Amino acid sequence: MAVYTDIADEELGAFVADYGIGEVTSFMGIAEGVENSNFLVRTTEGNFILTLYEKRVRREDLPFFLGLMEHLAARGVSCPLPLLTKQGEMLRELRGRPAAMISFLPGLWPRRITANHCAELGEAMAKLHIAGSDFPHTRANALSLDGWWQLIEATRERADEVKPGLADFLEEEFRYLEANWPKDLPTGVIHADLFPDNVFFTGDKLTGFIDFYFACTEAFAYDLVICLNAWCFEADGSFNRTKAVGLLKRYLAVRPLTPAEKAALPLLARGACLRFLLTRLYDWLNRVPGALVKPKDPMEYWTKLRFHQQVTDPTDYGL
Amino acid sequence: MAVYTDIADEELGAFVADYGIGEVTSFMGIAEGVENSNFLVRTTEGNFILTLYEKRVRREDLPFFLGLMEHLAARGVSCPLPLLTKQGEMLRELRGRPAAMISFLPGLWPRRITANHCAELGEAMAKLHIAGSDFPHTRANALSLDGWWQLIEATRERADEVKPGLADFLEEEFRYLEANWPKDLPTGVIHADLFPDNVFFTGDKLTGFIDFYFACTEAFAYDLVICLNAWCFEADGSFNRTKAVGLLKRYLAVRPLTPAEKAALPLLARGACLRFLLTRLYDWLNRVPGALVKPKDPMEYWTKLRFHQQVTDPTDYGL
Repeated sequence: MAVYTDIADEELGAFVADYGIGEVTSFMGIAEGVENSNFLVRTTEGNFILTLYEKRVRREDLPFFLGLMEHLAARGVSCPLPLLTKQGEMLRELRGRPAAMISFLPGLWPRRITANHCAELGEAMAKLHIAGSDFPHTRANALSLDGWWQLIEATRERADEVKPGLADFLEEEFRYLEANWPKDLPTGVIHADLFPDNVFFTGDKLTGFIDFYFACTEAFAYDLVICLNAWCFEADGSFNRTKAVGLLKRYLAVRPLTPAEKAALPLLARGACLRFLLTRLYDWLNRVPGALVKPKDPMEYWTKLRFHQQVTDPTDYGL
Repeated sequence: MAVYTDIADEELGAFVADYGIGEVTSFMGIAEGVENSNFLVRTTEGNFILTLYEKRVRREDLPFFLGLMEHLAARGVSCPLPLLTKQGEMLRELRGRPAAMISFLPGLWPRRITANHCAELGEAMAKLHIAGSDFPHTRANALSLDGWWQLIEATRERADEVKPGLADFLEEEFRYLEANWPKDLPTGVIHADLFPDNVFFTGDKLTGFIDFYFACTEAFAYDLVICLNAWCFEADGSFNRTKAVGLLKRYLAVRPLTPAEKAALPLLARGACLRFLLTRLYDWLNRVPGALVKPKDPMEYWTKLRFHQQVTDPTDYGL
């Protein structure tokens, strides 16, 4: 939950006026999201989200993210749409930070995951992948092998504070993944952060995706395993095969996997675990007293990684 | 900024259904407020605020607060109105916490205070005092002399960590206030926490008050000095007499002060400073690493208290 930057009255009024969306009637910080400051802006014409991009998002990546949302929205994917000012600007500056006004997406993110949520997610993610496949821009995945190695080096000295032997475990896993990482899988734009708080539902129906600020050009199947990890494990660490079956089945009905993609799932899933284990570990070791955001437990992803290490056949996931 | 408690989907749906306010279409935590968890609930019929009362609010006080809001709203004071369920309940329970659904108040709280804001506040506060004067319930001010003494005792050992000599300063000030504290001033329900983030404006016009969770039965003039402190000082610690003149003039035009109230202002203002200095000092000394809420600077109120100690005549405030 986060609002890192507050905005003075006159600044807000002047900023909003450029969009021709009426007068501001209400303005409040939203306690969701970790990377940026988000505000709900109500005007006489509707509801909008104002996002101020804080330092963790690279300014030069923002045109990719905002352009992607526009591209996807134009192809019927329900996601926030960046507004243009009367002068045609999409990315602006406020309080010394890059800032954008985006449309408000109705829906609630699910707190208790059901098999139905997973199935809905599978179908919508496949459509997202297809809709993004003709997006003309690319962005390398900063959190793949190179990025993992940087995080391993940055956490090596203190990783064992979290769990004895963790530093060695991470390096060993990395060496294995580096040697076996699949190449030439079908690739395109993936969301790369489809955790439940980034997926909105109204009742049983998925109504849209938010928070595209990790989107990158990557193997499509990598998005799938991120979701297997984030949606198909229970709080006790057990894998819920029913949820995974729903997710995979509805995904495949829209976008079938190639044999190479199927075969790569266990390895990709281990990589996706290592990615979140490492970023969480880094945040955990570098947490700041008094910080607004509680660091997430890195060991949740250790448990999931251990599960995938035992998987010998992708059919174990319910394929 | 705070959301201490999250709510599961089914719980939310069941809770909202009892009000007959339509289907939930959106639900998000609000990054404002310090004491409680607040959520914006949008339904097919409008916008509402769901508040979960966290441990700092005493459950037995809630009927007073909620009843007061209802009383004031019925008398034309713009403030959130607690909703009743179809069964007539105003105060309920959710996630083991007392919970209420209240109406959504439009407007923005001012980030940069102008003399106009202060003048508007003066008039609206006087009307608030008059509207509350026939509220039949009472609640003692827990943060008056007795409460201050408890905070002095609780902070005595470590107060000098913040400023050398602070513990002695606080006790000396307390002894003086205790010996001279005015009695028999006109009394009624006061808000007791009218900081800018609890007062909403639309353009130049004050549109309402929120957050009545410190309201109590107290000298009306005490509310006035809390506002002098919170609205009429600049960031550099200087007193802005123009703002104070506007605040007082418009207040007095609605509710004139008695001679005893006027004479008591400097002393009440010192008391109001001591109150916020002490609670901020306590929070500062007991801040928790990783807490969601940044503690506020206690010394801001030391500076203001020093100012009021020099005031010899209430006309110094602009009366």
